[in-house]
Amino acid sequence: MINPLSSFVFSHPLIATASAENGSLVLAGVLLSLVVVYFASKIGGEICARLDLPSVLGELVAGVLVGVSALHLLVFPSADFDASRSLIMQALQMTAHLDPEALNGVFESQSEVISVLAEIGVVILLFEIGLESDLKELIRVGYQAAVVACVGVAVPFGLGTAGLMLIGAALTATSIGITARVLSEIQRISSKEGQIIIGAAVLDDVLGIIVLAVVAGLAKTGEVQVASVIYLILSAAVFLIGSLWLGRLVSPFFVTLVNELKTRGQLLVSALIVAFILSDIAVVIQLEAILGAFAAGLILAETEKRGELEEQIKPIADMLVPVFFVVVGARTDVSVLNPFDPSNREGLIMSGFLIVVAILGKVVTGFTVFGQPGLNRLAIGVGMIPRGEVGLVFASFGATTGILSDALQAAIIVMVILTTFVAPPLLRLVFQREETAPVLSRPDDA
Amino acid sequence: MINPLSSFVFSHPLIATASAENGSLVLAGVLLSLVVVYFASKIGGEICARLDLPSVLGELVAGVLVGVSALHLLVFPSADFDASRSLIMQALQMTAHLDPEALNGVFESQSEVISVLAEIGVVILLFEIGLESDLKELIRVGYQAAVVACVGVAVPFGLGTAGLMLIGAALTATSIGITARVLSEIQRISSKEGQIIIGAAVLDDVLGIIVLAVVAGLAKTGEVQVASVIYLILSAAVFLIGSLWLGRLVSPFFVTLVNELKTRGQLLVSALIVAFILSDIAVVIQLEAILGAFAAGLILAETEKRGELEEQIKPIADMLVPVFFVVVGARTDVSVLNPFDPSNREGLIMSGFLIVVAILGKVVTGFTVFGQPGLNRLAIGVGMIPRGEVGLVFASFGATTGILSDALQAAIIVMVILTTFVAPPLLRLVFQREETAPVLSRPDDA
Repeated sequence: MINPLSSFVFSHPLIATASAENGSLVLAGVLLSLVVVYFASKIGGEICARLDLPSVLGELVAGVLVGVSALHLLVFPSADFDASRSLIMQALQMTAHLDPEALNGVFESQSEVISVLAEIGVVILLFEIGLESDLKELIRVGYQAAVVACVGVAVPFGLGTAGLMLIGAALTATSIGITARVLSEIQRISSKEGQIIIGAAVLDDVLGIIVLAVVAGLAKTGEVQVASVIYLILSAAVFLIGSLWLGRLVSPFFVTLVNELKTRGQLLVSALIVAFILSDIAVVIQLEAILGAFAAGLILAETEKRGELEEQIKPIADMLVPVFFVVVGARTDVSVLNPFDPSNREGLIMSGFLIVVAILGKVVTGFTVFGQPGLNRLAIGVGMIPRGEVGLVFASFGATTGILSDALQAAIIVMVILTTFVAPPLLRLVFQREETAPVLSRPDDA
Repeated sequence: MINPLSSFVFSHPLIATASAENGSLVLAGVLLSLVVVYFASKIGGEICARLDLPSVLGELVAGVLVGVSALHLLVFPSADFDASRSLIMQALQMTAHLDPEALNGVFESQSEVISVLAEIGVVILLFEIGLESDLKELIRVGYQAAVVACVGVAVPFGLGTAGLMLIGAALTATSIGITARVLSEIQRISSKEGQIIIGAAVLDDVLGIIVLAVVAGLAKTGEVQVASVIYLILSAAVFLIGSLWLGRLVSPFFVTLVNELKTRGQLLVSALIVAFILSDIAVVIQLEAILGAFAAGLILAETEKRGELEEQIKPIADMLVPVFFVVVGARTDVSVLNPFDPSNREGLIMSGFLIVVAILGKVVTGFTVFGQPGLNRLAIGVGMIPRGEVGLVFASFGATTGILSDALQAAIIVMVILTTFVAPPLLRLVFQREETAPVLSRPDDA
């Protein structure tokens, strides 16, 4: 009944009791949503593990099952969805008896918290990926990664623009979260292919942001906003190179400081401070939080604390990363895939074209890598296939500005769904085919 | 610029871009708030550790410094506080340039997320305390704990009611979070005194909830609502006894299941499912989430997985528990303690009386323990001193219903502040005075 924290500040009497009561419900809703997330991730993950598929695929599919497409356990507020369509809210309402408006407030707060937890999950994931990566190896494969990134942006963009520029833009950016998770599962992150994929995926995220700026400028004013494009390129370069350079300088002091601290969690909390500050800087200069977290991981991986930190970040990743993948699945409305609904058909045909372009445009990138004999080029290309979040942001932008028809928007969504779901098993397959290649990953990578 | 998750659902065009943009700011605000929390907790904690004081005291004081009383880095929306008074929001606004209304929206979302993270932090803390507790020992000291709890509720309530009933009620419930954290720091949780304190603190939380129901009924209708009081007593008893009994039956299956699972985080995620489900049940039957988390910890402590689970929950506690303590400090407005402000004086005098009652009323409880020679009775009483959240909820309730004057409300707040801040060093002191007593805590308790 009593929620301690949310009633600490009580300026307006009526608000005070209402928020005390509802705050407790928000916590209950968040915990219940997490229970749904954990059940879904474990059931989906375990089934896939037994079928020898990547467990992240199971998390995505289980997310679809509990989400907006099927069970409505984990749904998010929108024009079509208020609290009355969320099973969790209905369950809480059985004992709470709130009026509909108050219940919608609880629904919105709970959804906001779950969304941010999912985003912190992907921040932690990228931090962990950074920790598991090898900066020297990344720099060594830097040229190759840059080529893969540029080709992987240029080819799908070029092919897609044959349709429409925005479609091309939506095809550019690889979803680093999905690829990194699969690489981690099959213990290939620190292989040369893994490092090229990670490096290229980080770079094409930056390129994707630049492409969006260009396309948005064209859509708004009919001309390319050169200044903002230059700003983005410069700030991304300064941020990545600057943080790594500064990090190398400062990290000995970090280790000394951590060794001086005496209270519980000294290493973990100090590392989280570094990760969150760099994530924040990335957001402030209009890049993405995950880039900052990745840079922080790379920096701290260079210190002697790497092993200890990997050990401590693991339970946190286990707690928060599944939230990201299940939420991605839960937010995906697969009803646009239903071929029996006539209104879906135009989109489905368009999406056939898009999927071919999306897959081919990335698979070719592996074969552009030069001077690296014995590399699994197909694996690199396949690793770049999944488009996740950024593609959907483009679809959203297209819908907002009226550039895209409903069918085209649906086609982009279908493309994102299929590339996201197809890449994990494919990636696993192409890596397994070459069992002769050396496995460079560390034993504790699992 | 691009926020992957919050723009996944885009029903209304204008809302879509706005929420994509703001969602990224909410994440940035949350991460920045966490950086403030971590800096505060580490600086405060380390200073206290060096002064040989409990580090939780440093976290509380540092929380006050960054909060509403001083630096305004970590503040929460209220009638007096909108985004324009939050330094973090102002920092983000320098690059975001939102209109004031949108900025307030971001401020509210960010604060909601931090509040829930703090609440999850105390849930995790109680889960950890449960894991570190010994159910058999708790049952063995059950009678003593029950006596301590009843006396510790009755005496302050009786003395306080000499002033006013609601004042008495506000004095009843010990803040289990603060006491447990200090006991954990000085490695006394599994000592007999520690187990009596924990047991009594859990019980008096339940008793406090019942007292609030009684007082609320009296305030509203002038009579005691017998039915709801009986309901609360029964549901608390059924919940605690039932979950422990059922947990003992089911926990062998839990261990078998966890051993069968193959994907990452199998033990941790399964344990979190148990903890969050019990927390949810506790909220739904009008108790507090922390009771459920504590019960879950007790249940899982009985399994062979205890050691492994303690190891894995530690980083999560390190990440989330400081959020709770720093937020408690940050929300506390210490300006009511200023004796130079004439409007504070009546409250300060009242609070003098309340503090004496609050401390004496709990210290006597230790001396009511029977049949346990060689026990540190003073330590038990001192361990019950801190009142935290529940006292403030009573103050809030009093303000809402108009029973309490501003001065009385301020007096309760001052009482809560002082008992909270005084207990950690006192508790450490009384335990250190008897260095001859056996330390029963496990070596990994630090």
